[in-house]
Amino acid sequence: MLLHSDRLLPPDPATKAIARGLYAAVADRPIVSPHGHTDPRWWGENSAFSNPADLFIVPDHYVVRMLVSQGVRYEELGIGEGAERDPRTIWRCFAANYHLFQGTPSRLWLDHALSTVFGLAGRLSPANADAHYDAIAEQLASPHYRPRELYDRFGIEVIATTDSALDDLRWHAMARESGWKGRVVPTYRPDAVIDPDSEDFAANLDRLGDLTGCDTGSWLGYLEAHRARRAFFRRMGATATDHGHPTPRTADLAETAAAALFARVRSGKIDSGDAELFRAQMLTEMARMSVEDGLVMQLHAGSFRSHNAAVYSRYGRDRGFDIPVPVSFTVALKPLLDAVGMDTRLRLILFTLDETTYSRELAPLAGAYPSLRLGPPWWFHDSFEGIRRFRELATETAGFRNTVGFNDDTRALCSIPARHDVSRRVDSAFLAELIVTHRLDEAEAYEIAPLLSDGLAREGYRL
Amino acid sequence: MLLHSDRLLPPDPATKAIARGLYAAVADRPIVSPHGHTDPRWWGENSAFSNPADLFIVPDHYVVRMLVSQGVRYEELGIGEGAERDPRTIWRCFAANYHLFQGTPSRLWLDHALSTVFGLAGRLSPANADAHYDAIAEQLASPHYRPRELYDRFGIEVIATTDSALDDLRWHAMARESGWKGRVVPTYRPDAVIDPDSEDFAANLDRLGDLTGCDTGSWLGYLEAHRARRAFFRRMGATATDHGHPTPRTADLAETAAAALFARVRSGKIDSGDAELFRAQMLTEMARMSVEDGLVMQLHAGSFRSHNAAVYSRYGRDRGFDIPVPVSFTVALKPLLDAVGMDTRLRLILFTLDETTYSRELAPLAGAYPSLRLGPPWWFHDSFEGIRRFRELATETAGFRNTVGFNDDTRALCSIPARHDVSRRVDSAFLAELIVTHRLDEAEAYEIAPLLSDGLAREGYRL
Amino acid sequence: MLLHSDRLLPPDPATKAIARGLYAAVADRPIVSPHGHTDPRWWGENSAFSNPADLFIVPDHYVVRMLVSQGVRYEELGIGEGAERDPRTIWRCFAANYHLFQGTPSRLWLDHALSTVFGLAGRLSPANADAHYDAIAEQLASPHYRPRELYDRFGIEVIATTDSALDDLRWHAMARESGWKGRVVPTYRPDAVIDPDSEDFAANLDRLGDLTGCDTGSWLGYLEAHRARRAFFRRMGATATDHGHPTPRTADLAETAAAALFARVRSGKIDSGDAELFRAQMLTEMARMSVEDGLVMQLHAGSFRSHNAAVYSRYGRDRGFDIPVPVSFTVALKPLLDAVGMDTRLRLILFTLDETTYSRELAPLAGAYPSLRLGPPWWFHDSFEGIRRFRELATETAGFRNTVGFNDDTRALCSIPARHDVSRRVDSAFLAELIVTHRLDEAEAYEIAPLLSDGLAREGYRL
Repeated sequence: MLLHSDRLLPPDPATKAIARGLYAAVADRPIVSPHGHTDPRWWGENSAFSNPADLFIVPDHYVVRMLVSQGVRYEELGIGEGAERDPRTIWRCFAANYHLFQGTPSRLWLDHALSTVFGLAGRLSPANADAHYDAIAEQLASPHYRPRELYDRFGIEVIATTDSALDDLRWHAMARESGWKGRVVPTYRPDAVIDPDSEDFAANLDRLGDLTGCDTGSWLGYLEAHRARRAFFRRMGATATDHGHPTPRTADLAETAAAALFARVRSGKIDSGDAELFRAQMLTEMARMSVEDGLVMQLHAGSFRSHNAAVYSRYGRDRGFDIPVPVSFTVALKPLLDAVGMDTRLRLILFTLDETTYSRELAPLAGAYPSLRLGPPWWFHDSFEGIRRFRELATETAGFRNTVGFNDDTRALCSIPARHDVSRRVDSAFLAELIVTHRLDEAEAYEIAPLLSDGLAREGYRL
Repeated sequence: MLLHSDRLLPPDPATKAIARGLYAAVADRPIVSPHGHTDPRWWGENSAFSNPADLFIVPDHYVVRMLVSQGVRYEELGIGEGAERDPRTIWRCFAANYHLFQGTPSRLWLDHALSTVFGLAGRLSPANADAHYDAIAEQLASPHYRPRELYDRFGIEVIATTDSALDDLRWHAMARESGWKGRVVPTYRPDAVIDPDSEDFAANLDRLGDLTGCDTGSWLGYLEAHRARRAFFRRMGATATDHGHPTPRTADLAETAAAALFARVRSGKIDSGDAELFRAQMLTEMARMSVEDGLVMQLHAGSFRSHNAAVYSRYGRDRGFDIPVPVSFTVALKPLLDAVGMDTRLRLILFTLDETTYSRELAPLAGAYPSLRLGPPWWFHDSFEGIRRFRELATETAGFRNTVGFNDDTRALCSIPARHDVSRRVDSAFLAELIVTHRLDEAEAYEIAPLLSDGLAREGYRL
Repeated sequence: MLLHSDRLLPPDPATKAIARGLYAAVADRPIVSPHGHTDPRWWGENSAFSNPADLFIVPDHYVVRMLVSQGVRYEELGIGEGAERDPRTIWRCFAANYHLFQGTPSRLWLDHALSTVFGLAGRLSPANADAHYDAIAEQLASPHYRPRELYDRFGIEVIATTDSALDDLRWHAMARESGWKGRVVPTYRPDAVIDPDSEDFAANLDRLGDLTGCDTGSWLGYLEAHRARRAFFRRMGATATDHGHPTPRTADLAETAAAALFARVRSGKIDSGDAELFRAQMLTEMARMSVEDGLVMQLHAGSFRSHNAAVYSRYGRDRGFDIPVPVSFTVALKPLLDAVGMDTRLRLILFTLDETTYSRELAPLAGAYPSLRLGPPWWFHDSFEGIRRFRELATETAGFRNTVGFNDDTRALCSIPARHDVSRRVDSAFLAELIVTHRLDEAEAYEIAPLLSDGLAREGYRL
C-alpha cells in the first residue's frame, strides 16, 4: 500500500486520534495555491502532457539533483547536449534509483501522485517501471488528465503563477477568455528588471520602456513603468508580487541618491556594491507601491543560485544547484520597515531558507510589525520535519495569525495535492500535540485547522 | 477548565506518569527569582494596583506587540498621545483579540494568573470581558492583592530587581526598613553609564561622579566610581550585576589605551567603533570587579532595541520592537576569558536570544570554563518549546550543573508563578524523557529536579 | 543495572517494538571505524594499559573539561607541573564528581565501558571508587585487556588512525609485520605542513623535503612532496586524508599566484590573510590529488582550538578548550567545487560543529554534488540528541546514501563499542519513527539499518 491513511500523524495513540479528527476536518477543503510555478501555458492551452518523464523527472530539480548527487549524469535524465531522448529510458533510470528518495519529501509526493492521480498500487521499482510508464502514458493521453481537468480533480480554488514583469500574460488571457471557470492569477516578479546582475538587464529595461511607454532611462520613469506593469498585472488578476533576492537587504535612499544609483546601474558602469544596493532600494520602492496598489509583497531571500559553474554553463538554471546561505533579516529589513512597516496597507510575506531565523528574527518581527507575515517553510523545508520545525519555532512568538498557511511553490502539477496534504497532516499533528499537552482546547484547534489549510492563504494573499 | 493538571507533560502515558511524580516534587517549592524587572516601588510602598488594564496589558510588551502585529493601534492600548484612557475599554480590546495568543506562552501565563490569582473560571472572551474586569478590579482593591501579599501568596523566597547604577534604591530601603520579611534585592545594571550610545551618557557620568565623589572625568576615577556603586548595591543586598549589550564583544586593552578610549567617549568625540570597543572593554572591567567583590555577572546580549524608528519616537522604549540579531560568543568573549575566565571567583552567566549558540558555543564554553554558567532561555524562548530546546541542546555538553535554573525576567508580577510553573513542568518532562530512554535513573532525576526549580538559582546567584 | 536493554529507544510502545527489532538486526554487526584517534603504538606494541586513570580520565578531553568547568584543577587530574601522580587519587576525584556527567554522552560511554568491558555492576561513586579501581587495574594487567585483544572483543573489522604527514607510520608497520589479523590503517593528516599558523611550520616543510627528496622550497616541489607522502600512506593502507581547518574556505588560484603565495608562507613573510588563503588553496590541491589517487578527503572545520591562552600555555593542546564558531560552507567551498566537485572520482566528506549548516547548506550541497558526502555528527554532537538532530535535519534533503554512517572519532579505546552502540540505537529509533509515521516501509528500514551501522562507512571510505 503506497499511502497509509494515518501517514505523518503522531504515533502516540491518544494524540493520533485527535490528529485524525483534525485532519479529517480539513482533508477535503479546497486548495488555495497563492504562490507557485506552474506553466501558464498549461492553463491557457490545456494540452495533454507529453510523457511520464517530462511530467515527473526532467523539469523537477528536486528529483534531478538527488539522482545527480549519486552519480547519474544529466544526460541520462534528458538534460544537455546529446542527452537521452527516449522518455522510457529516462523513466527506467529513475525507477532504478527510486530508493535514493527514501526518507525525502519527494518520495511522499511521488508516491501520492502515482497512487492518487494515476491509480498505481506498487511503489516504483525496476520491476514495475515499464508497467507504470505505460499506465501513466495511457492516462496522460486521455482528456481527463489535461491541466484544467486536473485542476478540478485536485479541488483547486485558485492558483497563482509567477511571471516576469515583461511577460505579456497571454496564457492567462487565453485561460480567462476561454470561458473556463478555473481561477489562475499571475504574480508580478520583476527580478529581471530590478537585479543589475541579471542577464540582459539593460535590454530588459529597454523592453520595460517599450511595454509601458515610460522613460526607463530615468529613475522616475523607471518607477512609473513598474507602476504601469503592476496595474496591468492587477487587471489580469494578480494580488501579489514576488521578489527573489540573494539577501533581504533593503535601503531607503534620498531621491537624488537613488536617481544617481539608478543612472549607474542603467549605464552598466556600476561600483562595487551598487547592484546589491539597487536591489535593496527597490525592495523599499516595491513596498511603497504595495501600500498604494494593495498588491501583497513576497520576499524570497537567501539562495545562492546556480552554485556550480560547470553545471550552469552546460545545463542552465534550476538544475538543483541552488544552495542556501546564512541570512539575517533584523538589520537588513530596517530601512524598508522604518519607511512603511507600520502601515497596515502593506502586507509583506517573508520566506527563508535559513531556519535559524524562524525563532531568532522572523517570529519576533512578524509578532510586532502589522505589515509582516511569515511565509510557510520554503523549498528544502517544505517537508514533514520542516513544517513541524516551523510551527515549533515560530508559533510561540508569532502565533498562528501572523502566518499565511501553505504554499506549494511548485512547477510539478501532480505534486500539488500531495504537498497540501502533507502540510495539512503535519499541522493537524502539531495542533494535536498542543491539545494533548493542554496548550490549546480542541474547539480552538478546529477553528485554527481550516485557517492553516486555506483560510490564512486566502486572507494573507488578499485572494 | 483553564488549567489542566497535566498541562505541558508528555503525552506518552508511561512518560507522563514519571513526569507527574517529578513535577509534584517541585511544584510547591519556593520561588527563587534572581533576575527580573518588578518595580521596586511596589515592594517599598505596597500600594494597590490600579486596574486590570494597567496590571495585565499596558506595560506588558509581549501582549502589546502581538496586538499591534495584528493591526491594533498603540492608542487603543492606552499608549501614546491621545490614547484611550478608560482601562475597561482597553481591557475589552484585549478580550476581543485574546485568540491571537493561542499557542503562545503569554496565553499560558495569562490563563494561569486569571485562574490561580483571581479565581476566574472561563477563558477571557468578549462575552466575559466585563465580568472578568469587575472581578479583577474588585480583588485588586482588597488588601490581599497588594504586592507584598502576592509575594507571600506566590511563595517567593527572594526576588531581584534590576536597577540603574544611578538609582538611589530608595524603595529597596523602604522595604527593608518596613519590617517586612520579604527579601527583595537590587541588581547593578550600569548600562546607562557604560554605553556611550545611551541617551544622556555624559550627564549620567557627571551624575555618577556626584553620587560617588569620584572623578568620572578620568579613567581610574570612573572605575573607582563603579566600585563605589557596586559596594553600595552590595550593602543593599545585591548579589549580581547585569549587562544588556548589543553584542557580547569583550576587550582587554592596555591601561593607556583604555584611558585614551575613555577620554574619547567621555568627551563625546568618538571614532567609529569606539562605542562598541568601550562597551567591550567595560565587560572585562566589570568581570575584574566581580572577581574582587563577588557579585555574579550577567550578560544579556543580542537584542536590537527599538527596531522601528517611528514606534520609538512616538511610544518610547520597551514597546515590543526589540528584535534579536545573530550572535557569536566564542571569539567575542575571548579577551575577557583570557583575563579572568579561569578564576573560580568569577561567575559569569550568559544569556542569548540566538538559540544556535546553545549547542555550538554556549554549552562548550560553560562545559569548560569554571567561571561560566548558562542562563535559562530568555525572553522569546522562555516557553514550553524554548525551554525544551535549551535542555536538549545544552545538557549533553554542559550537563545540568553549568546552568542556573530559571529566571522569570518579568515586570508582570502575576505571571511569576505561571512562568516558574511552566519551567518546572517542562524540566520535569525533560527529566522524564531521560528516564524512559534510560539516560538517567529515576533517583537521580529526583535529585536534579529541585536543583532546576530553585537550587541552582540560589547557588548560581550566590543568594 | 548500569545498562538497560532498551536504552535510547523511543518511549511509545509500538515505536519501541519496531526500534528494538531494527536494533537487534545491527547490534552485533562488525565495527567499521573509518576515522579516529587511537594511538598507533597500541596496535604496534600491544602493551598493557597502565592504570584506570590513564585509560579513562587524563587523556579524555570530554571528561577533563567537565571536571574543570566545575572547579576541579588540572593538577588534580594529573595534568601540568606538580600534578597529582597517584592514579588512584585521580580516580577518586573523578568518582566524587561523576554526577557532573548526568545527561551527557560521556556518562553513557563510561557506564557502557565499565559494564561491558570490565563487568562492573554499580555506577561509579565515591563509595565504590576504590573497588572499581582495583577491579579495572587487575583486569588491565591481564593479557585479555591488551589493545589487540580488545580490538577482537569489540568486533572491530577495520580501524583508521589519524597521522601527521611527517609520521613514519612505524607502529602501523609493526602491527602489519607482526602477523596480527587486525586491520589498522593510517589517515593522511597534513595540517602541520599546510597550516602556516602551525608551530614549526618552516621546520615541518624542511622535514617534508627530507622525507621525500622533494624541493619543498618551491611550490611544485612542495606539491610533489604531498603526492609522495600520500603514496606512502596509501601503501601503508590509508584510504583517506583528513583536514582540520579553522574554516572551510577554499581557493583556486592561478598557478603563478599560488606559487607566489607559497613563496610568502614558506619564507614566513606573510601578509594578513595569507595563512587563511594558503589553507584554502591547499584544500583544492588536496582535492585534485584525491581525484588522482582515490584517497577519500575529509574536512573538519569550525573549531577554535585552544581558546584559553593560559590553559594552552600551561597544559597544552586538547585540554577541552576547543570551542566551535559559526561556519558557512556554501560560498567557502565553491572554488574547490567549481574545480573538481562534479568529478565522481572525488569523494569529500564534510563535518561540522555548527548544526545550523545541516539543513541550510550541507544537505543541499551533498544532495546535489556527486563528490560530496556528509560525515556523521562530530564531537559535541556525537550523542543521542545530536545524532537525532542530524537525521531529522539532513535526511529529507540528502537522503541516507549521501551520508557515510558513523565515526567514533575517539582516542578513548573503551568507548568505541559504546559510541557505535549509541549510534545504532539512535538510528534504529529514527527509522522506527519513519515507519510508524508511514514515511518508510519496515522492509526498507531493514535494508537501511545495516548501511547506517557499517555499510555506508565501508563504501564511503572505500575501505
